[in-house]
Amino acid sequence: MPRTLHLALHPYGVGGPGQHGLWKDPRVAKNASIDVNYYIRQAKAAEHALFDALFIVDSQFINATYPAHYLNRLEPLTLLSAVATHTRHIGLVGTASSTYNSPFNLARRFASLDHISGGRAGWNVVTSFDTGTARNYGLDEHLDYATRYARALEFVQVARGLWDSYEDDAFPADVERNLFLDPSKLHELRHEGEHFKVAGPLNLSRSPQGQPVVFQAGVSEEGRDLAARVAEGIYAPGGSLEQAQEYYADIKRRTAAHGRDPEHIKIFIHGSPVVAATDEAARRREREIFDEDNDLDRNLALLGRSFGAYDFSGHDLDAPFPDIAHLAEKGGRTAAASLIARATEERLTLRQVAESANAFRRSPFVGAPDTVADAIEHWFAAGTLDGINLAFRTDDDLELFVDGVVPLLQKRGLFRTAYAADTLRGNLGLPVPANRHTREPALAADA
Amino acid sequence: MPRTLHLALHPYGVGGPGQHGLWKDPRVAKNASIDVNYYIRQAKAAEHALFDALFIVDSQFINATYPAHYLNRLEPLTLLSAVATHTRHIGLVGTASSTYNSPFNLARRFASLDHISGGRAGWNVVTSFDTGTARNYGLDEHLDYATRYARALEFVQVARGLWDSYEDDAFPADVERNLFLDPSKLHELRHEGEHFKVAGPLNLSRSPQGQPVVFQAGVSEEGRDLAARVAEGIYAPGGSLEQAQEYYADIKRRTAAHGRDPEHIKIFIHGSPVVAATDEAARRREREIFDEDNDLDRNLALLGRSFGAYDFSGHDLDAPFPDIAHLAEKGGRTAAASLIARATEERLTLRQVAESANAFRRSPFVGAPDTVADAIEHWFAAGTLDGINLAFRTDDDLELFVDGVVPLLQKRGLFRTAYAADTLRGNLGLPVPANRHTREPALAADA
Repeated sequence: MPRTLHLALHPYGVGGPGQHGLWKDPRVAKNASIDVNYYIRQAKAAEHALFDALFIVDSQFINATYPAHYLNRLEPLTLLSAVATHTRHIGLVGTASSTYNSPFNLARRFASLDHISGGRAGWNVVTSFDTGTARNYGLDEHLDYATRYARALEFVQVARGLWDSYEDDAFPADVERNLFLDPSKLHELRHEGEHFKVAGPLNLSRSPQGQPVVFQAGVSEEGRDLAARVAEGIYAPGGSLEQAQEYYADIKRRTAAHGRDPEHIKIFIHGSPVVAATDEAARRREREIFDEDNDLDRNLALLGRSFGAYDFSGHDLDAPFPDIAHLAEKGGRTAAASLIARATEERLTLRQVAESANAFRRSPFVGAPDTVADAIEHWFAAGTLDGINLAFRTDDDLELFVDGVVPLLQKRGLFRTAYAADTLRGNLGLPVPANRHTREPALAADA
Repeated sequence: MPRTLHLALHPYGVGGPGQHGLWKDPRVAKNASIDVNYYIRQAKAAEHALFDALFIVDSQFINATYPAHYLNRLEPLTLLSAVATHTRHIGLVGTASSTYNSPFNLARRFASLDHISGGRAGWNVVTSFDTGTARNYGLDEHLDYATRYARALEFVQVARGLWDSYEDDAFPADVERNLFLDPSKLHELRHEGEHFKVAGPLNLSRSPQGQPVVFQAGVSEEGRDLAARVAEGIYAPGGSLEQAQEYYADIKRRTAAHGRDPEHIKIFIHGSPVVAATDEAARRREREIFDEDNDLDRNLALLGRSFGAYDFSGHDLDAPFPDIAHLAEKGGRTAAASLIARATEERLTLRQVAESANAFRRSPFVGAPDTVADAIEHWFAAGTLDGINLAFRTDDDLELFVDGVVPLLQKRGLFRTAYAADTLRGNLGLPVPANRHTREPALAADA
């Protein structure tokens, strides 16, 4: 089967990376990020366009300096469960922290979403970037980087163990034999690891896709290793074409080195396409969006996120970027390191770093529909991505992409013309994992 | 305003208290407890009948001996969020443990449900009855009774503090002033208590009902005290009319003693009405249900729940009930104590206790429609309840009650003929709590 492109929608609500002033656009409802009907409409539009998934990001720490869409938003699983019953095919990927959750609770919630959606749940595992999150969970200090990633790995392993508590045929519900459950098909987990002790079993059966799909966003050494071990989807950092190629090849190589099929990890990059009637109009629009969003105070606050919500107000804006690398050890270490490396290399001032930090996710997909389709085809063929996590400024921009670009991708055989399945696994081309406790029929017959 | 009756629906799925064999009824779908569409239908039927709320119970520990409806069920908030967008008026009360959750996470999930439902969320606070739950959350031992209740109180206080993070007018979203958030309306909690340290703020605004409604199910001294301090609704133990009167008066008295309006705590008892064309037919049906459900092995397993999933298989069924009171210290202490008291007093064998334990929630509401309406009116007038948490065996039984009994209650002025509000608070007659940080306009003018 030829490799095909996957598309997800990351609904921005009142803002998103590089579009933090989006709430000011008159076409954007001021309450979009807390309006379930906004998300239902987005999901339906994405499903109409045959997208693979709706992707919901998250964070659990704010202060008053944070951009609009951080300040006031719905919890991802509660949100996706509401969206589930209004859609039939589209995957529902929710972000949840392995640092500030318990495996039993979270495994159960994702399993519930998987049942409610008929097998469309995905879990984007994050370890929490904002160091301040710790203080919302009773800790004085954020767990350090290595601990967070070790915990994340064990968390996923425990969740998967819990998802296998029941074999697929555990519930004969046989009235004649008075047998609702076949007790031999229920398995305790009895996990005792470095970070978790979880006896199990889970009180929920396996869903149509066996287990929710696990996404990750590994950038650092630890993150890439975690992704290669357990992820089935990745929200990759993107960057230049060469950077994306390097990342893609590295993840596929690491995945194979762990004995896994590299086809079973789908790499998505972020894309905020700007589509217009002509290339020139699209580039003009892109410039407008950038200028409109270039708010210095807000950019400084965002920059501070990578350094534990650091307050830059005591620093001279036109002096060299201050030496605060040590503040990034616990939180967004990779993002902070790349900021500092660039500031040092290019001798940037604080003001310059703040300005450019805002633009770090500028899209390679800007232009008339055929230009954007060409760019996507080029990036796809160049081995940079299996899918794109698409974000649009407004419903009009989503429509321009869906009506203009998607048909071109379909004509070129890159993107589906109908859903192949009703589960997220099915549409992503991922196998349904066999329950670890289920013996092969042949073996059982031998026994 | 005259006191009026409140009705909630507790959907049984494949089983419930006293009806553990329900899954065998040919009219019950074997997957009801994990089928979101079953719950959506139940919620719509209850809303059509003008009920106040849908009430979802929960537990987080099972083994293979547990009854069908424990073994395989959806997580309550994920479930209720899916139900929310298919209903408009009915309250959505979900059970969640204060022992095995973090306040930030849970407060956020209930606030999300409150937004998604437009102000219809309720939280039934439980401290977890099954001692085995501890082992699903990394603990060797269940927290003891006093610790669980002290933690529950602080948990609710923290959640309410987080729900007040934003004042109601915190988001001017004023484009002219470039002001999405008014920072003076965002408040950190900075809670440091015996059980929790939570800095806040929550990243979600207040919902139409200000805060989700807090339910509790206090039976013991600690439970009653917790309810009187913080609950706005109670799922009461019921029992005989005299027992229910004593409980009702005690809770109202304790609530007043804490300086609260006793009208602002609504006491629900459980009711499994059996309605038929004649009283005789209803009593016959009740007997059938009881006999059908009288499965000794299952009753022994249920009995064991009060003693840490104790396995009675080593005991002589016809010997006196064994001396295992010490096993109940950490878990369902009150339930176990009353079982043992009765076994001792009435010199019951293990078999007899197991049989009678199954029937502990037999309904006072059995008969022809007017008999049931009379009984409800009598119990209501006698000061035993503000509401009934109704459970029905099948959709037919729900219909018999809704079509037969509800119109009689309406004719007598006991039950509403139209919803008064779109929020759970509004329909229960509970006030919207003012945000603790919001100054009275008069005071602000003085300042």
